[in-house]
Amino acid sequence: MTAGTAATDTRSRLLDTALRLFSEHGVEGTSLQMIADELGVTKAAVYYHFKTKDEITEAVAAPAVQELGQIAEEARKKRSRGAQIDQALTGFVELIVRQRLLLGLYNRDPGMQRVVNRTLQAPHGEDVKTGMKTVLAGEDPSLADAITVHVVFTGLAMAGGAPEYAGIDDDTLREHLLDAGRRLLGRPRPKRPSHGG
Amino acid sequence: MTAGTAATDTRSRLLDTALRLFSEHGVEGTSLQMIADELGVTKAAVYYHFKTKDEITEAVAAPAVQELGQIAEEARKKRSRGAQIDQALTGFVELIVRQRLLLGLYNRDPGMQRVVNRTLQAPHGEDVKTGMKTVLAGEDPSLADAITVHVVFTGLAMAGGAPEYAGIDDDTLREHLLDAGRRLLGRPRPKRPSHGG
Repeated sequence: MTAGTAATDTRSRLLDTALRLFSEHGVEGTSLQMIADELGVTKAAVYYHFKTKDEITEAVAAPAVQELGQIAEEARKKRSRGAQIDQALTGFVELIVRQRLLLGLYNRDPGMQRVVNRTLQAPHGEDVKTGMKTVLAGEDPSLADAITVHVVFTGLAMAGGAPEYAGIDDDTLREHLLDAGRRLLGRPRPKRPSHGG
Repeated sequence: MTAGTAATDTRSRLLDTALRLFSEHGVEGTSLQMIADELGVTKAAVYYHFKTKDEITEAVAAPAVQELGQIAEEARKKRSRGAQIDQALTGFVELIVRQRLLLGLYNRDPGMQRVVNRTLQAPHGEDVKTGMKTVLAGEDPSLADAITVHVVFTGLAMAGGAPEYAGIDDDTLREHLLDAGRRLLGRPRPKRPSHGG
């Protein structure tokens, strides 16, 4: 392993550890020292990557926001409006399922909300939100469609991050969230893909 | 006006004023002095009704929680499951529309979240949540139904309290939220009531 990949590895372990500690103690209740202790490194090693807890919190949330932008971009490449909506919904639900811990934290932790909302209110974050809304509701949507998309966004994210569903396996949660999203958006269930090879 | 109704009137004006100031400055950024100044009374007059800002915050949110409980109770009296669901959904949406300012505050303000979540986690609050969930999803619901109801609850409340829809009139917002709720819960749109009578 080169020094470069070791540093990348530490950074990624640091973010995983930070998210876990944030989930247990809240962002407010977690210190850089606690993160260092949990990783078994010195506080200086943490400082090498991040100067403040705020920077760590931002780095924990950033990949999810970035991915949301990519999902919208991918979905826009589909030809029909229906396929765009299906692709965006599937990608969004996949992101929710994979980022359940982060979502649960965002739904209840003021420290995480402050950082994520700041990210979403920055120009890039606004673009991401607008991109997802546009691909789901269309350009210049009716009020009815805009509100429906708002319900999809917030309802699926809140349900996916809810502590009472933390024990559900990914496949089951994904299926139920997709069902709810399709009903709201008026999309049919896809035909079961054949696995005949 | 008797002294009793004057006190009730002051209390009710105090809560209206507090909600408005909370919405403008956040719960954290609002002081008892600001509330007194806005009402044109002394701080002692505020103290006559509430000892702390926490008590005011609780009193601002309490009627909505109580009403949620009444909605579930009323809905349970209906004979058919369909009528129970329709009644609970209609009541819930009505509450959202009427309490938009409070909901918007709850959706973004950590101070209001702390107080409302504490109320909802107390035994009475748990009863209210369980009552609404049971009337919408049924006794011993499937996971799919439980998740759907979670999406309805959170999605409609978030959309109803969203600042971007603050300018929409009550009737329009009500109609769109009801539509989204009905699609999620698989309920038909009611026949338009005749106004011939």
